Amino acid sequence: MKPRQTKSKLKIIPLGGLGEVGKNMTVFEYENDIIVVDCGLAFPGNEMLGIDLVIPDITYLTKNLDKIRAFIITHGHEDHIGGLPYILRDINVPIYATQLTIALIENKLSEHGLLDTTNRIVVSGGETIKFGNSFKVEFINSNHSISDAVMLSIWTPVGTLIHTGDFKIDYTPIQGKPLNLHRLAEIGKKGVLVLLSDSTNSERAGYTQSEKTVGDTFSEVFNKYKDKRIMVATFASNVDRVQQIINAAAETNRKVTVMGRSMVNVVKIASELGYLDIPKNILIEVNDLKRYTDDKIVIIMTGSQGEPMAALSRMSKSEHRQVEIKPGDIVVLSSTPIPGNEKTVSNVINDLARKGAIVVKDDTHVSGHAAQEELKLVQALTQPKFFIPVHGEYKHLQKHAEIATMMGIEKSNIVVASIGDVVEVDKASCKITNSVPSGQILVDGLGVGDVGNIVLRDRKHLSQDGLLIAVMTLDECGTVVAGPDIISRGFVYVREAENLMDQAKMVVRKALDKCEKQNVTDWVLIKTTVRDDLRDFVWQKTKRSPMVLPIIMEI
Amino acid sequence: MKPRQTKSKLKIIPLGGLGEVGKNMTVFEYENDIIVVDCGLAFPGNEMLGIDLVIPDITYLTKNLDKIRAFIITHGHEDHIGGLPYILRDINVPIYATQLTIALIENKLSEHGLLDTTNRIVVSGGETIKFGNSFKVEFINSNHSISDAVMLSIWTPVGTLIHTGDFKIDYTPIQGKPLNLHRLAEIGKKGVLVLLSDSTNSERAGYTQSEKTVGDTFSEVFNKYKDKRIMVATFASNVDRVQQIINAAAETNRKVTVMGRSMVNVVKIASELGYLDIPKNILIEVNDLKRYTDDKIVIIMTGSQGEPMAALSRMSKSEHRQVEIKPGDIVVLSSTPIPGNEKTVSNVINDLARKGAIVVKDDTHVSGHAAQEELKLVQALTQPKFFIPVHGEYKHLQKHAEIATMMGIEKSNIVVASIGDVVEVDKASCKITNSVPSGQILVDGLGVGDVGNIVLRDRKHLSQDGLLIAVMTLDECGTVVAGPDIISRGFVYVREAENLMDQAKMVVRKALDKCEKQNVTDWVLIKTTVRDDLRDFVWQKTKRSPMVLPIIMEI
Repeated sequence: MKPRQTKSKLKIIPLGGLGEVGKNMTVFEYENDIIVVDCGLAFPGNEMLGIDLVIPDITYLTKNLDKIRAFIITHGHEDHIGGLPYILRDINVPIYATQLTIALIENKLSEHGLLDTTNRIVVSGGETIKFGNSFKVEFINSNHSISDAVMLSIWTPVGTLIHTGDFKIDYTPIQGKPLNLHRLAEIGKKGVLVLLSDSTNSERAGYTQSEKTVGDTFSEVFNKYKDKRIMVATFASNVDRVQQIINAAAETNRKVTVMGRSMVNVVKIASELGYLDIPKNILIEVNDLKRYTDDKIVIIMTGSQGEPMAALSRMSKSEHRQVEIKPGDIVVLSSTPIPGNEKTVSNVINDLARKGAIVVKDDTHVSGHAAQEELKLVQALTQPKFFIPVHGEYKHLQKHAEIATMMGIEKSNIVVASIGDVVEVDKASCKITNSVPSGQILVDGLGVGDVGNIVLRDRKHLSQDGLLIAVMTLDECGTVVAGPDIISRGFVYVREAENLMDQAKMVVRKALDKCEKQNVTDWVLIKTTVRDDLRDFVWQKTKRSPMVLPIIMEI
Repeated sequence: MKPRQTKSKLKIIPLGGLGEVGKNMTVFEYENDIIVVDCGLAFPGNEMLGIDLVIPDITYLTKNLDKIRAFIITHGHEDHIGGLPYILRDINVPIYATQLTIALIENKLSEHGLLDTTNRIVVSGGETIKFGNSFKVEFINSNHSISDAVMLSIWTPVGTLIHTGDFKIDYTPIQGKPLNLHRLAEIGKKGVLVLLSDSTNSERAGYTQSEKTVGDTFSEVFNKYKDKRIMVATFASNVDRVQQIINAAAETNRKVTVMGRSMVNVVKIASELGYLDIPKNILIEVNDLKRYTDDKIVIIMTGSQGEPMAALSRMSKSEHRQVEIKPGDIVVLSSTPIPGNEKTVSNVINDLARKGAIVVKDDTHVSGHAAQEELKLVQALTQPKFFIPVHGEYKHLQKHAEIATMMGIEKSNIVVASIGDVVEVDKASCKITNSVPSGQILVDGLGVGDVGNIVLRDRKHLSQDGLLIAVMTLDECGTVVAGPDIISRGFVYVREAENLMDQAKMVVRKALDKCEKQNVTDWVLIKTTVRDDLRDFVWQKTKRSPMVLPIIMEI
């Protein structure tokens, strides 16, 4: 798309993944065309009690439905594809992505019964697709901790943008090709207006190691513990990691079994599409494990982040139906804890150690994200006029901006944005001019967005001090005909607190008497009196503040 | 106490701090005498909803009350002293500790109104105290991240034990003397039967750096940011750290203000006792901050672990009454996140960065615990026959046991115990023979132990999916005279779910009709029917499982 004479500006609107982790989504808008890059989910923070997952607020998109041309997905990780099943219901536009990414998306959509009603288009690295009148997008082969990741070159009327997606530079990838540096250099030479680049590892000096180095560790471990049963826990989506575990197993004449629903799924999809090269007869069913001695067994499974329902955690607690950890088992943790999971992972390690397993966790993982020298290389090749650090917490964006300054990009040409910011770009300027609604939509069971702050506040309250219900039935004159009864949950162990409950009942009775004497008949007032008196009494007796819920029925 | 002819065995019973973090407590029992080393608390894990703190289960001690001669406290950290206010109520025996430790204990006891009814004895390093007929305890000067820490040499009829408490070896401590290596060597030469040693850092190679190195960083930072306001967050109890911040402030002609209740307390206590050397006129009140320019200000405060109520977190969220973070402020985080706090600390850093503060966190902290080479040195000096690793998660104990094996202690002479284990020791053997009740007592408000598994399970349930109450009044024939009403909290945002609530009411009505038709009059059965039907309905509609609470009243 040749830059053309126009007064319109390009809008770049991040709706997720900026100053936070997960639910990546970036909107590019020019006149009547919108393309949306990535559509991810985030996992709920500790404070989001009971929430299953979090997706971006797409109010802005639903208000501009007729402009949206496509979702373009850079790779198949949850934080880039996981929002699709929820958001496609409102915005059913075609999805463009590479083969493995589309396969993982289809696996997801099929679980939600959305396969027949949505439109997916498989593209290849090197391909260029036109979207509306304003955008042409070239898919550039890249490297990440999942195969088939791409960077995007987005040609717009105001100039060329590069969006790196999540990336690292792996000169020796397990599958596929190294990041297409030549193409980046070519595009860079012609002139890049804006670079949007992955900031996740911007605080790390040097280079991120090649995925291949992990394979060397697997070989060492498998050879060192020749006569032991070996279990490796890693991310289901890291197909290359799984390949290397299978390679090490093949080298040492072991059979491999795969455990954990997502792991089984991904292995199936990736091997069908040729992203996994699995030697004949090496895979066995879990039930066949007993036919082999320990020195012939490798188990690949989920749970490297200590997820409580995953295979490894259940084994560590002897809650797994099929595998019991025994002394001498080798458990390789092939991941590092995602921030927030450190304690949980540590607990799993302690439980495994208690059962006598040897836990191996050094040199068993490399990051999927570029470190500082790689970030610099991409900046050097693309030579952007403007720079927008993306994907990362605020401190990562800030550090990435510092790196860009060191690389010679003018400070005023660097935009550290927040989600919802509208970054307006033309040939001469790139700046935040405005903002649109943005934030997080909570998904809880089937409910999308029906759990908000009030519900969360109540859950928090209930979780801290539990609940005290005072229930009573009044007749039309306001005379108590049944109750008051006191019911509590999550407050105190009632058998030891009978006395307290009896006293609480007395407090409610007195509150009702007080209301009657003062001729208070407004139920709201009666409820307030009961609540306040009961709350004060409980606080005084226990220094706790359970949720107090007076319920009045009338006959 | 000379080893004497006897058939009795010494019992060592860890009641906390083994295979877990916090609430340290070790019981030493010989015939009619018991001494208890340390009496700590632990902070609740994420799963302990609403719990304030956790103390050891002391059932065993209360059953042997008349044997208990003393609490001996190794240093003034919460995980060694924090259980005292709760446990002294049941076990009011004298407390022996060094001066600063006793002062911190008294501060705590005074808050609980227990100063007048308890007995504290100040001892000094080098002093030896006799307890009953069986124990003589020598207090040996040690180093840790708080002043006045001691190791214990415990002379018993079966032989000499060394309990290291928490320690590191600091050849250049800020206050006090280096760990008394000579004394350890002397005792070791005469023969140590059992060494119990701190395992916290057993996975770390090399030596832990001297506290002094942090002072060098402070000097650099204070000189680098000459014209900026400097804030340093650290642990209130780390008096030496506070001293070094004050030193750096004095060097650069800055005034110092102290914020956070525990920080203010500790600084007061430590300076009164001479553990802090504060230059005249350097301390100023918070309210006087405005009289000084930024280059003249240092704020020392709590919150380095991201504790939500501490000064730093509140400032990072603009919720602090007195200090507002502004661009260019220097915030030094002088601690590393305790496992489990990583995410919270990271959030605080992001919030500070967003406000334009520069966060300094490299070389601003050293550990208070010995690394592998120090652990080896103490083993080499004491030459114990038996070894019990203490203080640490299971993986730390296991690693420490490995180190002891490398140091030449027979594998069969190393005991990796769990809390509640009874380790019986005589001259020839040291092994686990039995166990006593042990575990954790939860403290919630004024309640000690009244929150148990059922209450926690209910809080967990309520926190995940909230609550649905179905309330109805029946007459004696079982006819509904009021209700059913549906009330929910923490479940869905009701205004958007009116329809769902109406349907739920219908479900309850139908359940009641069903009972009436089948002549079910047993309230338990009616309740069960209502609960099951409502639960099924809600799951089908929302894929959520709120706690369903049917309440039936009778007139």
